[in-house]
Amino acid sequence: MDKNIFKLRASYYETDRMKIVHHSNHIRYFEDARISFMHNIGCDVYELEKKGILIPNIEAYAKYKKPIKFFDEVCVEVKLVKFNGVRMKFEYVIRICETDEIAATGFTSHCFADENLIPKSIKHSFPEEYKILLQNTVSE
Amino acid sequence: MDKNIFKLRASYYETDRMKIVHHSNHIRYFEDARISFMHNIGCDVYELEKKGILIPNIEAYAKYKKPIKFFDEVCVEVKLVKFNGVRMKFEYVIRICETDEIAATGFTSHCFADENLIPKSIKHSFPEEYKILLQNTVSE
Amino acid sequence: MDKNIFKLRASYYETDRMKIVHHSNHIRYFEDARISFMHNIGCDVYELEKKGILIPNIEAYAKYKKPIKFFDEVCVEVKLVKFNGVRMKFEYVIRICETDEIAATGFTSHCFADENLIPKSIKHSFPEEYKILLQNTVSE
Amino acid sequence: MDKNIFKLRASYYETDRMKIVHHSNHIRYFEDARISFMHNIGCDVYELEKKGILIPNIEAYAKYKKPIKFFDEVCVEVKLVKFNGVRMKFEYVIRICETDEIAATGFTSHCFADENLIPKSIKHSFPEEYKILLQNTVSE
Repeated sequence: MDKNIFKLRASYYETDRMKIVHHSNHIRYFEDARISFMHNIGCDVYELEKKGILIPNIEAYAKYKKPIKFFDEVCVEVKLVKFNGVRMKFEYVIRICETDEIAATGFTSHCFADENLIPKSIKHSFPEEYKILLQNTVSE
Repeated sequence: MDKNIFKLRASYYETDRMKIVHHSNHIRYFEDARISFMHNIGCDVYELEKKGILIPNIEAYAKYKKPIKFFDEVCVEVKLVKFNGVRMKFEYVIRICETDEIAATGFTSHCFADENLIPKSIKHSFPEEYKILLQNTVSE
Repeated sequence: MDKNIFKLRASYYETDRMKIVHHSNHIRYFEDARISFMHNIGCDVYELEKKGILIPNIEAYAKYKKPIKFFDEVCVEVKLVKFNGVRMKFEYVIRICETDEIAATGFTSHCFADENLIPKSIKHSFPEEYKILLQNTVSE
Repeated sequence: MDKNIFKLRASYYETDRMKIVHHSNHIRYFEDARISFMHNIGCDVYELEKKGILIPNIEAYAKYKKPIKFFDEVCVEVKLVKFNGVRMKFEYVIRICETDEIAATGFTSHCFADENLIPKSIKHSFPEEYKILLQNTVSE
């Protein structure tokens, strides 16, 4: 499967009283897609954490266009659009698979940090991961 | 208590592996604060839904400045900054009570919709709620 | 794939400060597996709800044996062990795929209800679904 | 307020398509109540974790009697019913404040563990917390 695409099916517990997926879950879908993407390109979040690098969020934004309903299959497309070793930004498009309609778009930005959440650059300390992320950065 | 302030304590299940409140929960805290505010000004979301008016999200944004830790007490300040009967926008500031530090800021925007999620104006159909929301709108 | 097996990968947002999947999420995994199973046997929850039948929980139980970590792939095995048209009970085993170790076991029990959550039998009103569920019931 | 009682208001994001609080959230309410209780009796979970003691779940059970609706205020009553330094068990009753009806009952059981999740007794290593928990144990 395309390394930029994360597929999932909306769970019952993700819906709310409006009978649609609660808007906070789109932020979680973004995270699932980003973590899958980073794994696919060889820069695994779990492995990075074992080496002492955390990737906290600095920003998260979602624009909701069409409700996701229970049991809908959705595709989350993710792109790394900015990276400089200190920060990175990802953009997302969530589509409802059946109709190919866009359910939501959005972005998140992140820094790299040590286990005390002190921001740090990975340029010199993690040259391999730095290179991989740089190579997988596309224009916004 | 101030009608614009919603207080809560961070739950264990809201934390993640980084030992901080997961960033999707800030979006949920925003919602708790908005719903509390609307209740406090006399425009209760539960009552509106009983009358057939839903308030889906169009946008959500959060900027994360300082991690919220487990058992931290936080205050969410909410302001209605735009309202025209069709859409509304709220701004939020989350502060850690003990230190008064800002943990996050953000906004959400919403429309009004019927039970089929078709957008509609509440100006003429719900004049009372329209008036209350207009009176409680402050400049951005 | 086996109709009784639901596979998933543990998400970052499902972990807590202990660096393991929070125990409430196992209850959610059970639900994902049950809904997938019911879909697989031809008794789709979404379709049932469209016909006015809800399936609220009466009980939920989980026994935790081994922590699920972030990014672990797990298999949830589900069995329908009791069904009489009025109530049903499912049993679950969650295994960590890589090691085949049991992470948790549990059960949930349910009734059938109309849209006002009034319990009802599906024996005569939904004979097709009744038959399917009966045929897919195995001994405890 | 009574040290055994935890009060909360059901959040919008905790509801599901059935327009009731999703059953996994009752397990989370139990946790909020347990953590509040432990804080109230002087055996704070946050402080214990700082000293290297974690309290993972071994079991969780809930019996659902009456749905909790959005914006309902509920009281969670918690009792420590078993404790021996190695394990403990809590029982819970969730009531809807307005009507005093029981929404759910349940229990959770726990062990004490070090940061690698290896079970351990706190009897000799944490005599103060051991004493407090023992004094606050009531019969089942």
